[in-house]
Amino acid sequence: MPTFLHCTKYCILFFLLLPFQSTAQHVELFNHISNEVTTIPSKVLKEERSMYIHVPKRDSANPDKAFPVLYLLDGENHFHIISAYIDYLSYYEIIPPIMVVGIISNDRRKDLTPTNSTLDYSGQVDSVLKTSGGNETFFKFLQLELIPYIETTYKVEPYRIFAGHSFGGITAINCLFTHPGIFNAYIAISPSFWWDNKYILKLAENKLGKSAHLNKKFFYSVGNEGINEPNSFHTDVLKFDSLMVNSAPKGLLYKYKSYPQESHMSEPIVAYYDALRFIYKDWEPPLKK
Amino acid sequence: MPTFLHCTKYCILFFLLLPFQSTAQHVELFNHISNEVTTIPSKVLKEERSMYIHVPKRDSANPDKAFPVLYLLDGENHFHIISAYIDYLSYYEIIPPIMVVGIISNDRRKDLTPTNSTLDYSGQVDSVLKTSGGNETFFKFLQLELIPYIETTYKVEPYRIFAGHSFGGITAINCLFTHPGIFNAYIAISPSFWWDNKYILKLAENKLGKSAHLNKKFFYSVGNEGINEPNSFHTDVLKFDSLMVNSAPKGLLYKYKSYPQESHMSEPIVAYYDALRFIYKDWEPPLKK
Repeated sequence: MPTFLHCTKYCILFFLLLPFQSTAQHVELFNHISNEVTTIPSKVLKEERSMYIHVPKRDSANPDKAFPVLYLLDGENHFHIISAYIDYLSYYEIIPPIMVVGIISNDRRKDLTPTNSTLDYSGQVDSVLKTSGGNETFFKFLQLELIPYIETTYKVEPYRIFAGHSFGGITAINCLFTHPGIFNAYIAISPSFWWDNKYILKLAENKLGKSAHLNKKFFYSVGNEGINEPNSFHTDVLKFDSLMVNSAPKGLLYKYKSYPQESHMSEPIVAYYDALRFIYKDWEPPLKK
Repeated sequence: MPTFLHCTKYCILFFLLLPFQSTAQHVELFNHISNEVTTIPSKVLKEERSMYIHVPKRDSANPDKAFPVLYLLDGENHFHIISAYIDYLSYYEIIPPIMVVGIISNDRRKDLTPTNSTLDYSGQVDSVLKTSGGNETFFKFLQLELIPYIETTYKVEPYRIFAGHSFGGITAINCLFTHPGIFNAYIAISPSFWWDNKYILKLAENKLGKSAHLNKKFFYSVGNEGINEPNSFHTDVLKFDSLMVNSAPKGLLYKYKSYPQESHMSEPIVAYYDALRFIYKDWEPPLKK
């Protein structure tokens, strides 16, 4: 069904674009990101789940090339910019081409929180949070359903990146500490450490220093959230960073960046760029034959 | 014709997406950038010219809203990332929604150079440069054909931004000095000041200090090109910056940024973001009624 849809869609687009062919045939955007939504049924989550999928263009000299995969939380929010970064940077051989799976949550407060709590940032009860605490089930969905679906449907390398912002940030860190085997690299942009009486900060205190060698990459960052306030969103990230500096496991290659000029919502634009550059800082393009 | 194409294309896409509707109808990427190429005939240039056009989504509460327009050189290269920035940042009301016209040059060495020269960066003759020196004709095309086409076809605000990288950078600066009235804001990412024995640097020396009040905004930047070499790409930009510091016209609000971590081709990603934030740093979203 998706194959047929692909074919039909592109054939029709081809004919629609024909009038421009004579003058515009040399013109090509190398970062045309698809807007197509793929939906798979999930027995684990007992619902259908949607995602945006971006597959880099194939090099005609290497049509069987497999790509690493970036699993991106809040896909509808950051999918487009990150996919465009990847296409642009890989075109200039600054990073490799990477496939992007932009995961869309039907209930992000459920998927992207480690524990059940109804307390908001200010400590007040907020009933919209009552479904929270779904991280563990969500990780099971990733391991048993989504990753197998992607890895049997597309040609992929055995290198997986997990990336999230805000609640997605604590979800990435929770996964790093409790299921480090699922992914090879983790990105946590402005993680919401305030969640449930700083549950993830406490988890970090508990896990860091006790972990054995961990051969992973990890990027985390913060914007200007509560930057001049005591005991704030910002100071939580600083506390986490000092835990990392003092007791990060051997083998865990990590980078922390602070963006005092960026707000909670503008920071992902610059931080995702830096995260990609960090993960692939030692990458070199394959030698041309 | 374009209206019909739009309609047909979206109707077909609608039906193609129908199978996903039941589970994915709440899903929306707010930065879906069109890949459609628009071509107009140019009497000035004696050729047809193609461009990518991105029109921000309309707010249903304000369907007649007019947008400022960013005219982007090397459109096929940077159109997608910049359009995605604008959609993302304007969704969060950090900058206003802006229309993007990604201009594609049939011969960029011709359009994007101020003078005719066949000397390359190392001072050697390169015959591919023999068509160079088309800036003035290109500006005429912008003034007499492209801008009128855009401003009669779309609902636009009388605020125009002109942006370019490398040769596009010297083109933007040449336009600022010789035709300051065409645009309201100018962006020059890593301008190639080396061109034709530093023609644009000499123009700057000649113009700066003699200009009257100039009520414009201007962002310029450099990456790591020749950063540790004497008399290099990098030192040219530093020289230009010192001219600006010493003798920028009154009213010209400018910002210079250096990106020592970025190469000539990666710099536009971060610099265009900073340029947009600079131009709209004092912008505030309209009050909700």
